[in-house]
Amino acid sequence: MTQSKEVKPVWVTGAGGFIGLHLARFLAQKGCHVIGFGRKQAPGFALATGGVFFPGGIAVETMDAALAAHGRPSAVYHLAGGATVGQSIAEPLKDFEQSVVSAARVLDFLRRHAPDAPVVLASSAAVYGGGHAGSIRVDAALDPYSPYGYHKRMVEELGRSYCAAYGQPVSVARLFSVYGEGLRKQLLWDLCGRLAAGETDIVLGGTGAEMRDWHHVSDIVRLIHRILPEGEPRFAVYNGGAGAPASVSTISSMVLEAWGGNHRLSFTGESRRGDPVNLISDPSGVPEGHQLQVPLGRGLAGYVDWYRAEILAEPVGHLRRSAP
Amino acid sequence: MTQSKEVKPVWVTGAGGFIGLHLARFLAQKGCHVIGFGRKQAPGFALATGGVFFPGGIAVETMDAALAAHGRPSAVYHLAGGATVGQSIAEPLKDFEQSVVSAARVLDFLRRHAPDAPVVLASSAAVYGGGHAGSIRVDAALDPYSPYGYHKRMVEELGRSYCAAYGQPVSVARLFSVYGEGLRKQLLWDLCGRLAAGETDIVLGGTGAEMRDWHHVSDIVRLIHRILPEGEPRFAVYNGGAGAPASVSTISSMVLEAWGGNHRLSFTGESRRGDPVNLISDPSGVPEGHQLQVPLGRGLAGYVDWYRAEILAEPVGHLRRSAP
Repeated sequence: MTQSKEVKPVWVTGAGGFIGLHLARFLAQKGCHVIGFGRKQAPGFALATGGVFFPGGIAVETMDAALAAHGRPSAVYHLAGGATVGQSIAEPLKDFEQSVVSAARVLDFLRRHAPDAPVVLASSAAVYGGGHAGSIRVDAALDPYSPYGYHKRMVEELGRSYCAAYGQPVSVARLFSVYGEGLRKQLLWDLCGRLAAGETDIVLGGTGAEMRDWHHVSDIVRLIHRILPEGEPRFAVYNGGAGAPASVSTISSMVLEAWGGNHRLSFTGESRRGDPVNLISDPSGVPEGHQLQVPLGRGLAGYVDWYRAEILAEPVGHLRRSAP
Repeated sequence: MTQSKEVKPVWVTGAGGFIGLHLARFLAQKGCHVIGFGRKQAPGFALATGGVFFPGGIAVETMDAALAAHGRPSAVYHLAGGATVGQSIAEPLKDFEQSVVSAARVLDFLRRHAPDAPVVLASSAAVYGGGHAGSIRVDAALDPYSPYGYHKRMVEELGRSYCAAYGQPVSVARLFSVYGEGLRKQLLWDLCGRLAAGETDIVLGGTGAEMRDWHHVSDIVRLIHRILPEGEPRFAVYNGGAGAPASVSTISSMVLEAWGGNHRLSFTGESRRGDPVNLISDPSGVPEGHQLQVPLGRGLAGYVDWYRAEILAEPVGHLRRSAP
C-alpha cells in the first residue's frame, strides 16, 4: 500500500457492476482512493482502480471493516441495486433488498459515521413510468411501472429522509439508457449475442418505435461525478439523460451496420409488460454544463468492437452469454 | 382446537400492539380465526381472541409456520411498524426495518401464497407532513416530516407496487390520532403518568393550539375493517381521521377534568422537532358510511378509568411506566 494518507477514501457501491466499475476507474484516474462494495468479488477492480474491494453485499459488517481499515469516506456513490425490470418482476423481494435495503444501510451508516459526506444515489427513469408522451422534466409526476421503478423511488425517498432529518447532502441521478463497454444485458447485449450466433433474421419485441435517451457510460460517469453535492445539507434530483434520443429501431440498425454483413431486422409489434413507449429526458433536468463527449455512432461502434474483442475472445464466451 | 375448518384464518401483524390487539379482538368477535404476528409474545392475545400468536417478528419463517399450521390467510391487516416519530429519529434504520421491510415481507409472502387475499396497510397522517393549514384531503401532496413518515409512505408505495404488478388488492389507512384503552405512549399516557405521580403544575411542550384529529380505537378498528378491499386488484387510500378535531390544550384540559382535582396546565410554547401544527383529516378522505360511535368526552373518560384500573393497579405500575 503506497496510498498517501492524505487521500481520503471514496466509496462506490455496486462497484463490480457495469456503471460502478467505470465510475471507480474514473475516480481513480482523478486521484481518489476508491473503496468498492459489491455482492461478488470483482476481479478487475483492483487492477483498474488501485483500490480495495469489499465483497459480501452492502452489510454493516463490510462497511465497518472498510471504516476500520481506511477511515471515513469523503464521498459515497451508491450504485448498488437490483439489475433489471424483468428480474424485479420475477423476484420483487430480492430487488427490494438489493435496492432499498442496501440504500437504507448505507445512509444509516453515514448518519452514524460520516454525516457530512456527500452522497450520490443512482435511481432510474423507471420512476417516471410509461405515461409520458414527450420528454420528461425532473419535476414530472412519478408513476413507476414495475417493482424496479417503485424500489428506485423508495431509494430516492430514503435519501430525502436522511437529508431532511440529519442533513446528509444527497443528489439523485435518474439514469435513462446507459450503454457502453462492459454492459452485459439489455438490447445491445442481446443483439450482439444473436449476431455472434450467426442469426441473419433478427426479430425483436416491441414496435421498434420506442424512444430511449442514450448515454455512453463514460459520459454518465462524468455526470454522476459532477452532481456530487458540495457538502451543504441539500437534496437534489437530476436526470441522467438528455443524451442522444433514438428509437430502438434506429439503434438496432446502427448496431447491425457496425457489426457488418447482411441482416434483416423486424419487430413483433408486441410490447413487453411494463415497457414504456418513450423515456427521454427533458434537457432542463440535466446538470448544468454537462455535455455528451461520445456521440451515439462512435459509442455503438465501440460497443461492437468491445463485444468482439472481449466476449468472442473469451473461452466459450458466446455460449456462456446465454446463461440466465 | 375446536376451530371449525370452514373459518379461514385472518392475519393481523403487530397484533400485540395497541391497535392490533383491539383489531384482533374485534375480528374474533366477528367470528374470524385470528392469527397474530408480532415481535414479542403478546400475553393477552390468546385469551382475548381465541386465536394463535406468532412472536419473532415479521419473518418468512414465522409466516411459513402460520401457513403450514393454519392455511392461507383470507385477509391480512398489516399493522406492524415503528412505534413513534421520536424513536424513528433516534433509530431510523430500526424504524425502516420494522415498517418497510416487514411490509415487503408480508406482501411478498402473499404474492407467493395468497395473491388474492385482500390487505389493509396501516399508514399514518405523518405522510402528509406539517405544511397543511386546514384539513387534509386524501389526495393532498405528501411531504413527510420524519423518518417515521417517510417510511410509512414507502409502505404505501410497496402496496401500490404489489397491486400494480401482481394484482394484490390493497387498501391503505392513514391513521391520525388514535387513542383509547391500552395506549401506552403519547399525550394521554404522559398526562396520566404525571397526574398519577402527583404533579399539580403540568407543563407541556408546544403551544397547546396544535389541532389533532382524535379517533377512539374502537372506531378506528371498525374503519380498518370496513376498508378491506373486496378482492379485485385495486389500490385505495383512506384517511383514518375526520374524527373529533380538538386542540392539544382542549384534550389536555378534558383529561385533567376526567382525572379530577386541581391542576394547572401550561405550555412552553416551544414545539418539538418535526411536530406539525395541524393534522386534521378532510371528511372526503374517510370511508363512506363510517361514523364515530365514541364521542371524545366519553372516550377520554374511559381512558382515564382504564389508566387508573389497569396501570395504577399494576405492581409498581406508575414507576414502570417511566422506563424507556
